[in-house]
Amino acid sequence: MSGNSFGHTFKITTCGESHGGAVGVIIDGCPAGIKITLDEIQHELDRRKPGQSHITTPRSETDTIHILSGIFEGVTTGTPILLLAYNKDARSQDYDELKKLFRPSHADYTYLMKYGIRDYRGSGRASARETLARVAAGSIAKKYLKENLNIEILSYVEQVGHIKADIDMQSVSLNAIEENIIRCPDQKIAKEMISYVEQIKAAGDSIGGVIRCVVRNVPVGLGEPVFDKLNADLGKAMLSINAVKGFEIGSGFAGVELPGSQHNDPFIMQNGNVRTSSNYAGGILGGISSGEDIYCRVAFKSVSTINKEQATVNLKNEEVKVRGEGRHDPCVLPRAVPVVDAMAALVIMDHYLRHKARIS
Amino acid sequence: MSGNSFGHTFKITTCGESHGGAVGVIIDGCPAGIKITLDEIQHELDRRKPGQSHITTPRSETDTIHILSGIFEGVTTGTPILLLAYNKDARSQDYDELKKLFRPSHADYTYLMKYGIRDYRGSGRASARETLARVAAGSIAKKYLKENLNIEILSYVEQVGHIKADIDMQSVSLNAIEENIIRCPDQKIAKEMISYVEQIKAAGDSIGGVIRCVVRNVPVGLGEPVFDKLNADLGKAMLSINAVKGFEIGSGFAGVELPGSQHNDPFIMQNGNVRTSSNYAGGILGGISSGEDIYCRVAFKSVSTINKEQATVNLKNEEVKVRGEGRHDPCVLPRAVPVVDAMAALVIMDHYLRHKARIS
Amino acid sequence: MSGNSFGHTFKITTCGESHGGAVGVIIDGCPAGIKITLDEIQHELDRRKPGQSHITTPRSETDTIHILSGIFEGVTTGTPILLLAYNKDARSQDYDELKKLFRPSHADYTYLMKYGIRDYRGSGRASARETLARVAAGSIAKKYLKENLNIEILSYVEQVGHIKADIDMQSVSLNAIEENIIRCPDQKIAKEMISYVEQIKAAGDSIGGVIRCVVRNVPVGLGEPVFDKLNADLGKAMLSINAVKGFEIGSGFAGVELPGSQHNDPFIMQNGNVRTSSNYAGGILGGISSGEDIYCRVAFKSVSTINKEQATVNLKNEEVKVRGEGRHDPCVLPRAVPVVDAMAALVIMDHYLRHKARIS
Amino acid sequence: MSGNSFGHTFKITTCGESHGGAVGVIIDGCPAGIKITLDEIQHELDRRKPGQSHITTPRSETDTIHILSGIFEGVTTGTPILLLAYNKDARSQDYDELKKLFRPSHADYTYLMKYGIRDYRGSGRASARETLARVAAGSIAKKYLKENLNIEILSYVEQVGHIKADIDMQSVSLNAIEENIIRCPDQKIAKEMISYVEQIKAAGDSIGGVIRCVVRNVPVGLGEPVFDKLNADLGKAMLSINAVKGFEIGSGFAGVELPGSQHNDPFIMQNGNVRTSSNYAGGILGGISSGEDIYCRVAFKSVSTINKEQATVNLKNEEVKVRGEGRHDPCVLPRAVPVVDAMAALVIMDHYLRHKARIS
Repeated sequence: MSGNSFGHTFKITTCGESHGGAVGVIIDGCPAGIKITLDEIQHELDRRKPGQSHITTPRSETDTIHILSGIFEGVTTGTPILLLAYNKDARSQDYDELKKLFRPSHADYTYLMKYGIRDYRGSGRASARETLARVAAGSIAKKYLKENLNIEILSYVEQVGHIKADIDMQSVSLNAIEENIIRCPDQKIAKEMISYVEQIKAAGDSIGGVIRCVVRNVPVGLGEPVFDKLNADLGKAMLSINAVKGFEIGSGFAGVELPGSQHNDPFIMQNGNVRTSSNYAGGILGGISSGEDIYCRVAFKSVSTINKEQATVNLKNEEVKVRGEGRHDPCVLPRAVPVVDAMAALVIMDHYLRHKARIS
Repeated sequence: MSGNSFGHTFKITTCGESHGGAVGVIIDGCPAGIKITLDEIQHELDRRKPGQSHITTPRSETDTIHILSGIFEGVTTGTPILLLAYNKDARSQDYDELKKLFRPSHADYTYLMKYGIRDYRGSGRASARETLARVAAGSIAKKYLKENLNIEILSYVEQVGHIKADIDMQSVSLNAIEENIIRCPDQKIAKEMISYVEQIKAAGDSIGGVIRCVVRNVPVGLGEPVFDKLNADLGKAMLSINAVKGFEIGSGFAGVELPGSQHNDPFIMQNGNVRTSSNYAGGILGGISSGEDIYCRVAFKSVSTINKEQATVNLKNEEVKVRGEGRHDPCVLPRAVPVVDAMAALVIMDHYLRHKARIS
Repeated sequence: MSGNSFGHTFKITTCGESHGGAVGVIIDGCPAGIKITLDEIQHELDRRKPGQSHITTPRSETDTIHILSGIFEGVTTGTPILLLAYNKDARSQDYDELKKLFRPSHADYTYLMKYGIRDYRGSGRASARETLARVAAGSIAKKYLKENLNIEILSYVEQVGHIKADIDMQSVSLNAIEENIIRCPDQKIAKEMISYVEQIKAAGDSIGGVIRCVVRNVPVGLGEPVFDKLNADLGKAMLSINAVKGFEIGSGFAGVELPGSQHNDPFIMQNGNVRTSSNYAGGILGGISSGEDIYCRVAFKSVSTINKEQATVNLKNEEVKVRGEGRHDPCVLPRAVPVVDAMAALVIMDHYLRHKARIS
Repeated sequence: MSGNSFGHTFKITTCGESHGGAVGVIIDGCPAGIKITLDEIQHELDRRKPGQSHITTPRSETDTIHILSGIFEGVTTGTPILLLAYNKDARSQDYDELKKLFRPSHADYTYLMKYGIRDYRGSGRASARETLARVAAGSIAKKYLKENLNIEILSYVEQVGHIKADIDMQSVSLNAIEENIIRCPDQKIAKEMISYVEQIKAAGDSIGGVIRCVVRNVPVGLGEPVFDKLNADLGKAMLSINAVKGFEIGSGFAGVELPGSQHNDPFIMQNGNVRTSSNYAGGILGGISSGEDIYCRVAFKSVSTINKEQATVNLKNEEVKVRGEGRHDPCVLPRAVPVVDAMAALVIMDHYLRHKARIS
């Protein structure tokens, strides 16, 4: 039980269903003295919001965030921060059909089996709308990490369906990522991806992809072996996002084919610092950050809601047909980029504070 | 801090370094009334122990387990269970060279930077010897799940280096897995893998691979969204194992190329039960078990210790050469199989107990 | 850090300052299927609200509660429940004087020293207004315990200043408690108490007292030794309430004078049940409920805000005088009764769910 | 479940029954770099051990402590520390009578009801022998606090039965406490107490008392409102000790009779520091340490084992008689002093590390 909190020291607890009163988050353990404005939080949320381009869902939610506690005169006070986005009213009759059946690959069936009841309006708690709470909380962590430690977190779309980009992780910039609506920093491949998503959308279908996340300037020493290794917590963070089916740190699955003599990252001296000449490890050794860039990959499956007729089962255990509503995201990747950013920020922030407790 | 515990309700805390007094684990929250013998625990440990075949490290540790609390007259009492394996003495002078430098891709550097001190004898706390504590604890969970819920956990080697097996997950059996020393249930591919590991060993090198884990008969309803999703906790569990670089649930990275119309798993009725006709989801929907088989894949990189000269840096920040000791595991996969089993058992057990608190 | 959560399985996280946007609570881990109305929650809050009688603070806050998530069509869904009471606007200039100094025995000084910043409006996070979040959450636990287990929680005022009532714990009823505004079920002593509080109020002073809490029909077996003993968690719960300086379970401090031959509670058979013929233990043996009534006592000091001139220090470290605002509670006890109820309910509920995970 | 851990950042998990293999503790989150010897740990344990004087139990256990992990070359490494004391063999037949019945005011009945099984040898897990694990862990915290922050923790016996000492908390010293076998720093009252315990012992009975704990030089700022207030965590720590029935911080129960005008502690300037001229608060304001001395009182009931015939019930639900073994502690207070010390040290240490995560 009680699975709605994440983090040990910078701890967030989210709440809210797709069409309940609000989606929100309490951040407990945020350091005092951080200057933060509503605009800074909203800016990250706007990267996640629906309707931001013709390849995202046309639902027009503003996702306006409210600060209800923990920030006084523009500064965090060290007390719990409550951030809320109120939901728009949902018409109950809109769900008269959906409430009677289990949509394929949605959580309708498992929620009903687990809890004996489900809020069937727009997926309820299982809706990806919950991720706005993560992005809101993550925006404060992201700002703190940037301003205090110069830590930079950059996520981008590396693959959509079968279309893959080969991005240089060391030179990639936020500008390049934000230059197009698919958030792939290779502008040429981005066009192919967009075109492919347009086809998928036209077909009433959906498609998945891969997001890469790069974190720069992480100090040496973050991560708490043997279970709360930095990579293990990053993995859990990403795997807790809706639709995620895979996570790789460093060389990942491809790396298993390299013998140790090739995969090992030799230590070298560089400008007086201990560095490694390669980085198959992905910036983490023994679960602790090494000072090299951290990079990981996150696999998102295609969204389950499609505009095609599908076979399924209803509450009476009859085999029936269902057709999704027309306003789904054909490809969730561009909107998931700020969510991956946020989860990375939350993990790094939490581990930074945990590590601080250790050092004199 | 305090990163050495795993689980919420069936909670384990491990301790011990490679060459300290002992490696151990306290299990807190184990249900009372489970019959368990030392032999049953030792049996799982023997699958993990060094020296079990010519392709594992020739170090001869017996890994004999001792029960020091929590089990009375062969039955768990509901109080914390302490399991210990005492270490053999290490000669300090054996480490005179290694203590002065950072072995490539080992945790020597990050541990020293994080803590300001490190136990340099055989990797200290970062040694994979710690996983024996996980296997010991997991053996009790595994037994409980099998006897009370008929849950079966089967892990096996699916890939070694570039050599891949294509195993039918539904028919694979423990016997087939244990029939060869590489623990790949395809006996023909297993021979190729063994032969490849022999070559790697002869070259003083090491190689990685992929372990598949299949869990059968999991009841519907396990998993605590939105953060403690069953897949997220499985991912964290696996990513906390030494050398793991990737985790996939269900269709994983390959699945991102499938449009929703192909990836969605249609619900059907089968013998009066709600089932799905495909299982790209990997047995988990919305973070909650669906009743279908759970399956995942875990990527292990090659072990860092190799018998070749490598470039590195010493404590004086001089660039030097290092050559590993000769007794490493050329391929850790066969010994990692029971560790993956154990982590899966620990996650399922913990979530089963968490879910029990919810149901009337 | 992260000290704003309470409970392990039925876990609450509160937020909000006296004059921020709202005071609220997320309940994570509430069982699904509990019918609960806004009125039932509001009813408990009304017992705590200011202005309910002439011996409480005349501040007129309505403390209207809102449900923003986790309850659908009047039933809990098993997802996190967000309950909020919006605050009324505070005029910043009202605090121009107070923000420059540290009120004696308030948390002004320690909050500023700890966090480097404080929300000085009405004590900020240190305000007892936070307890409304506890009462709101506790009301759901209380209802569940009553309806499912027939557990009855009754708190009442046993002492105000030097005036003590001697109440029979076995016959006391909610009606007797609610019959007067001081919430002491001895109607004669209650009058004396009220009269004394009127004097204290007229003098611009404040006074403390003791609340007794009795819990009936607790099943045998709740409590998780050796640290999360039922009495230890009850103690922590009560000691976390503003102004509490002491906690006793069973015979408490007076009991230390009894030799074992008198203090031991002999087991007897009564109507086929194992019972004890006395109950010095207070219904808990070895940290686990015994089935006898649980009873404890909670000491509240006088509230710190008084309408008298007091010596103190300001932010410039000058010794100055301060006089409290005129609208304080002369005696917080009657309003603290529902808070004690709530904390008892939260502890029992959490331990009931924790214990459920153990039993087959 | 999982109630055998205490602390958030400096976290201990204890294990072991009275007559199982060992009693032990894992400390997770201990800072690296603390020099600690076996002798320093053993020294604290010797204050707790049985047989140390003629007024404690004559059982002769040496309680020899062993370090099995986390300390390398005499220095903590930041990894989990396992401390163990092996138990002496118990003869099972010694318990043939006791295993069939429930000793009055012991945990025999509640353990059996909760878990369905109990280790009946010497109270099993409910034995106060478990507190040696707390003392062992506390000794490291105590040393760290003393050496790094000059924090001094002094506990002593203030009351035995009806005999009370009035000790000046500001001048009391460890020497005065250790000067007699009852650990009351008033040497004259101590003699009375010892004489009284001798009478109690001769009568085959037992008696309780009160331990005072004083903590000096605690920095301002420790404590995490609103639930993990320093006083709330101190209270839980003490209430989790066997036989404890009450806890007071600062003015406690007696303080409720003081009006605010007398109870409030005025702030003053003293040698350039903000101080208070009285300390009814007990060194904690709003749950956060104020820099004044922290003091609290802990009530211990008489031990349940007495050498007199008592009425009770057996496993067949028959009313029977029982007589305790002859080797009980007539008064547990002198041996409980180091346990109270240890729990105070563990709480302060944990909160010090938690607070460190907050400050830049």
